[in-house]
Amino acid sequence: MHEQHFLTNEFVVPERMKAWVLGGPDEIYLVEKPVPEPNVAEVLVRIDAVAICATDLEILRHGVPAMVEGGLPFHKNLTIGHEYMGTVVKLGTAVDEYRIGDRVTVEVHAGCGRCARCRQGMYTSCLNYGDPAKGHRANGFTTDGGFAEYAVNHINTLVHVPDDMTDEEATLVVTAGTSMYGLDVLGGLIAGEGVVVTGPGPIGLLGVAVAKALGADPVILTGTRDRRLELGKELGADHVVNARREDAVAAVRRITNGRGVHFVVECSGAPEALNEAAQMVNRGGRICLAAFPQHPVPVDLASLARNNIYVFGIRGEGQSATHRAMALMKQRRFDARLIHTHTFPLDELPTALKYARERIDDAIKVVVKAKC
Amino acid sequence: MHEQHFLTNEFVVPERMKAWVLGGPDEIYLVEKPVPEPNVAEVLVRIDAVAICATDLEILRHGVPAMVEGGLPFHKNLTIGHEYMGTVVKLGTAVDEYRIGDRVTVEVHAGCGRCARCRQGMYTSCLNYGDPAKGHRANGFTTDGGFAEYAVNHINTLVHVPDDMTDEEATLVVTAGTSMYGLDVLGGLIAGEGVVVTGPGPIGLLGVAVAKALGADPVILTGTRDRRLELGKELGADHVVNARREDAVAAVRRITNGRGVHFVVECSGAPEALNEAAQMVNRGGRICLAAFPQHPVPVDLASLARNNIYVFGIRGEGQSATHRAMALMKQRRFDARLIHTHTFPLDELPTALKYARERIDDAIKVVVKAKC
Amino acid sequence: MHEQHFLTNEFVVPERMKAWVLGGPDEIYLVEKPVPEPNVAEVLVRIDAVAICATDLEILRHGVPAMVEGGLPFHKNLTIGHEYMGTVVKLGTAVDEYRIGDRVTVEVHAGCGRCARCRQGMYTSCLNYGDPAKGHRANGFTTDGGFAEYAVNHINTLVHVPDDMTDEEATLVVTAGTSMYGLDVLGGLIAGEGVVVTGPGPIGLLGVAVAKALGADPVILTGTRDRRLELGKELGADHVVNARREDAVAAVRRITNGRGVHFVVECSGAPEALNEAAQMVNRGGRICLAAFPQHPVPVDLASLARNNIYVFGIRGEGQSATHRAMALMKQRRFDARLIHTHTFPLDELPTALKYARERIDDAIKVVVKAKC
Amino acid sequence: MHEQHFLTNEFVVPERMKAWVLGGPDEIYLVEKPVPEPNVAEVLVRIDAVAICATDLEILRHGVPAMVEGGLPFHKNLTIGHEYMGTVVKLGTAVDEYRIGDRVTVEVHAGCGRCARCRQGMYTSCLNYGDPAKGHRANGFTTDGGFAEYAVNHINTLVHVPDDMTDEEATLVVTAGTSMYGLDVLGGLIAGEGVVVTGPGPIGLLGVAVAKALGADPVILTGTRDRRLELGKELGADHVVNARREDAVAAVRRITNGRGVHFVVECSGAPEALNEAAQMVNRGGRICLAAFPQHPVPVDLASLARNNIYVFGIRGEGQSATHRAMALMKQRRFDARLIHTHTFPLDELPTALKYARERIDDAIKVVVKAKC
Repeated sequence: MHEQHFLTNEFVVPERMKAWVLGGPDEIYLVEKPVPEPNVAEVLVRIDAVAICATDLEILRHGVPAMVEGGLPFHKNLTIGHEYMGTVVKLGTAVDEYRIGDRVTVEVHAGCGRCARCRQGMYTSCLNYGDPAKGHRANGFTTDGGFAEYAVNHINTLVHVPDDMTDEEATLVVTAGTSMYGLDVLGGLIAGEGVVVTGPGPIGLLGVAVAKALGADPVILTGTRDRRLELGKELGADHVVNARREDAVAAVRRITNGRGVHFVVECSGAPEALNEAAQMVNRGGRICLAAFPQHPVPVDLASLARNNIYVFGIRGEGQSATHRAMALMKQRRFDARLIHTHTFPLDELPTALKYARERIDDAIKVVVKAKC
Repeated sequence: MHEQHFLTNEFVVPERMKAWVLGGPDEIYLVEKPVPEPNVAEVLVRIDAVAICATDLEILRHGVPAMVEGGLPFHKNLTIGHEYMGTVVKLGTAVDEYRIGDRVTVEVHAGCGRCARCRQGMYTSCLNYGDPAKGHRANGFTTDGGFAEYAVNHINTLVHVPDDMTDEEATLVVTAGTSMYGLDVLGGLIAGEGVVVTGPGPIGLLGVAVAKALGADPVILTGTRDRRLELGKELGADHVVNARREDAVAAVRRITNGRGVHFVVECSGAPEALNEAAQMVNRGGRICLAAFPQHPVPVDLASLARNNIYVFGIRGEGQSATHRAMALMKQRRFDARLIHTHTFPLDELPTALKYARERIDDAIKVVVKAKC
Repeated sequence: MHEQHFLTNEFVVPERMKAWVLGGPDEIYLVEKPVPEPNVAEVLVRIDAVAICATDLEILRHGVPAMVEGGLPFHKNLTIGHEYMGTVVKLGTAVDEYRIGDRVTVEVHAGCGRCARCRQGMYTSCLNYGDPAKGHRANGFTTDGGFAEYAVNHINTLVHVPDDMTDEEATLVVTAGTSMYGLDVLGGLIAGEGVVVTGPGPIGLLGVAVAKALGADPVILTGTRDRRLELGKELGADHVVNARREDAVAAVRRITNGRGVHFVVECSGAPEALNEAAQMVNRGGRICLAAFPQHPVPVDLASLARNNIYVFGIRGEGQSATHRAMALMKQRRFDARLIHTHTFPLDELPTALKYARERIDDAIKVVVKAKC
Repeated sequence: MHEQHFLTNEFVVPERMKAWVLGGPDEIYLVEKPVPEPNVAEVLVRIDAVAICATDLEILRHGVPAMVEGGLPFHKNLTIGHEYMGTVVKLGTAVDEYRIGDRVTVEVHAGCGRCARCRQGMYTSCLNYGDPAKGHRANGFTTDGGFAEYAVNHINTLVHVPDDMTDEEATLVVTAGTSMYGLDVLGGLIAGEGVVVTGPGPIGLLGVAVAKALGADPVILTGTRDRRLELGKELGADHVVNARREDAVAAVRRITNGRGVHFVVECSGAPEALNEAAQMVNRGGRICLAAFPQHPVPVDLASLARNNIYVFGIRGEGQSATHRAMALMKQRRFDARLIHTHTFPLDELPTALKYARERIDDAIKVVVKAKC
């Protein structure tokens, strides 16, 4: 199926392409525009599939987060969509890490490579965030993304897709990479440690899967929807807690015989989530904020300080975590496909977005495909 | 002066001693009680000087923090005081690291050595906190402290005092160790990095001193009292900001040409401090919470997550930071004595506490001495 | 089978026990001696099974390694054996982490808890190594070990054994813990990284298993015995290289398309192993020395420096790696039982040692059981 | 003196320049060649001063180290010299971090920014080492360096020079940066720890200075030349050991009361240096190999493994250590100028090289200046 026929025709790149672009709030248009050109260390990707992220819905409604402060409420004409995969169809002049025809999936952030953070390897914290002239790209945020036929990607944002992985599954690598990164920042030695994941959205569900794949024990998932929690069990949760029926903190204490866990990955964005997480961990515990409430919320900082708790904010995936996530997925350590629920053609993006936003038909990950 | 005359008389330990003990809220009594016996890996310290910490005032009024949840509002009969120094007068059976007559200063936490955290070297996060039967001690918090003539200390909590350091200066090592630890948890490579210290209390002031000693540049101190800020300058601050006259965030941005700093050590406990710190650091910045408001405060978690900010709560000193602080003080890298303002005899502890609490006569560190 | 019947009789501890003790080189005697008493943070373990390690054979012939320098060629009357498991039959006065009747397996090192290294969590590097008065124990090395009916263990050296794990498998936890620790010191993020394990002895074979369990890809095992290499495949090696038939460095380069791997765990002790490892890793690669030649060997230090290679010597397991190893084994991430080949009763220890030393009948792990 | 007169004439860049280029072994020619053009993230530096490194002498005689394996004994026509400073005279199109007229000093390695190591921040271990098409530069090694009138530098390799620092001192930043990096890889918390530096060459001498600046105690320097050792004392060594008169290991044990030190930075390249370092450190000690013998030497790997010793090979400076070194030098924490002994004009490079090689007149750092 994914054999690499180097037929001339297959990878002929047209001059123009279809792309969805932002208008005003909640407006998105299908337009035709020139196919972009890859720079020296970039490739052109023909987009084969793209998953919808909750952040896409946010951007569509409120604009790109980092832009809000700057006063630009909307990034008009931007093509959003950052969870995509496809096929390399053109190489920058210095690229030999990839070949025409390679199937690839992407991560979001290409750091500038020249600021203090990038030099430390913390490219998701690039100090030139949003400055494409200096080489920063965050496709779907500050540069054009995946709701289109083609996109340019720096090779740092690419991950090879194995032949036996479907396009749909490959779109989930960036989500799994975010979950992986959430665990990475907590310090890395996960085997045998208790991990609570709060919030059974896509990052939370794959957070459960990655934590279990790395040997965490027990893995506890908290949430409010039983179907999601059941899915969490299938993905590796040892215990699930429906916070509508049982106090989540009490449940974690009960399951761990009062000891609490060492790690919490907060994926719910609920206002009380951080305070609860601080009560779920034991002294010296660590909490990753992979989600957050939109507005300031009351936080009991005294409990953080008194209990030596560390809180790690993350913006998406980093530290090449997508590569590690792909390694686990390729080895079938968990089945990310369980969170993929719907597929629509690219032309029907508005419908796909509606399914994702309204969770129609229990939608979790909704994928848009060029051809389906 | 500090020659070690091993005169029999000098280190004769009496059977009973004077000690101040807690009564109800804001009640403290001078009593006579038996001199305690050191265990196998402990020593008996004759207390020569003890500094008053804001936490002592807290405990006196509200009880030991960790105890509040447990329902015991007051730890009656506890001898508080944790910033003391003195002379080793008796050795546990397996102690050869110290000798009778050694001058020592102390850190607070002796971990149990057997829980998961202690085994990782995170002894201030001991999971057996408050369980002396398992070997945990936090003198002045969960076991008897320094407002007395003698105290027992695990050798893990001792630091040798050089001959040319006064008793008063030696009491400041634990404060400097807390400042040092606050910088340690931020990652360690401080030279050439911008550091903001918020709050010119003792930990903040010595935080300035330690940051500068390690080569941080610039070191910025924010506060509201000009005299304290001036002291910060003497201790090494490159810039001071009086937040009553200039917005502290704006000032930090101005001083750093808009770039912000990599590190903030929050020592004020002000309600807005964490949110402001998050605006002072650049992407990937790190904040240490060495102080905190007593009650939950609104925190903009979105800014932490979006900017990859890490927040490290600390409870006092850890990772043997007191030893590093002493190393710097011994080498005269900064003059901690600048924060010592008043001295009273042990018998006048209530007066000393009053000076500390009401900052009478601009008191910063008030020291109580056995003989003065 | 492993139900906990708290019958009085079952855990009655006799006054005397059988124990094998060292004589001169290659001499070991079965004697009767008093059952030891556990100290405050220790337990008494009734030994149910003990595996033979190559180090046991070394000690039997040459004395305890750390002792050689000190001039004591033999530790007469020491009971060796450090890979044992059993049942808790008596508790020190402050122990509530374990109960009478608990099945436990052990790790070797109980640090003193008071030296600079133990305080950092590096208890296998205890600066009071060999000083039991200060609390250090290394059962089977500096304090009595497992070729006996009973042994005393500090609770820091215990790991709970689940009911459905056999005694024989439980003896392998310390070996797996050493393999785990070998990977831990390399930095922890193993998923998707290439790992070479050189030498298919027990630590090497379980090194393959742990590396694969954590998602390493590819895992390459080198050795000279095809049967061992086959076992490596069963335990998770993606590739095996018989160094008698193919140059091991060339093979690793071939398998990795010339790139080399990031990590090598050296478990062979071969004279050329470190130099070869340095050619197997890419720039910035990391090598763990879990084995070593007895005498100095030529090493190309220039290649280490020019290529930014880090080399980590380890002495057995550390950082509570046995707990992580047990977590993986309990979750059946690999089948350590594959390396257990023979079982003998305790009385036949000399025969068991002979099997282990001469690899009679392809012996890998030879286990001695109290009752079999 | 260093006022920035933006006179048109001052920064006019000619089309051609003088440059020294390699011929065969020990042959170096002064030629005229085109001034190079900076790429998008690069600048053109007018070279004002350049120091001679022992590695320059090596390359001149034996070729660039990394090239030896590849079979090219000499890199004909390469301009070597990597310890230079100068003035920015032209900017790449995306450069705003530096301005025309800025005084800068350099570090050697500009990583590709796209390989696995660069993405981790380990740019000195770039997997595309020597591939300028992919963006790697190591000026003076794989791309043209500083024995010329102009050189191109990626902005990642630049450090601002303060106005009150002389050209000569600024050339020493890369050496101090290497010393700093040598301490960085050892783990970072240096204050109060014992550090031995073996070998009083430039890196060793500044290693002493940096270690002391960070609060190490004691700092011990070993060597064989008394004048160099005296210089070590001026730069901060607490103790110096002339290994011709006293066994260096015994001396370190004596000075540290038998305990040894935690860290050794090996800067001598002596055949026995690593074995001796392993005896100077205590258990869990760490050794940085900043120098190395040219040929394999016998190493006692058993002592590394048994004592949990870690060995870190480094190739020059990394982790932006030059910036930290400059921060300390700018704050006058040590006086690097003490190691600068001679200055020659660029035209007299052969004489300068002779002084450096033969240590004529006790030469340590010999600097070549465009105008002197």
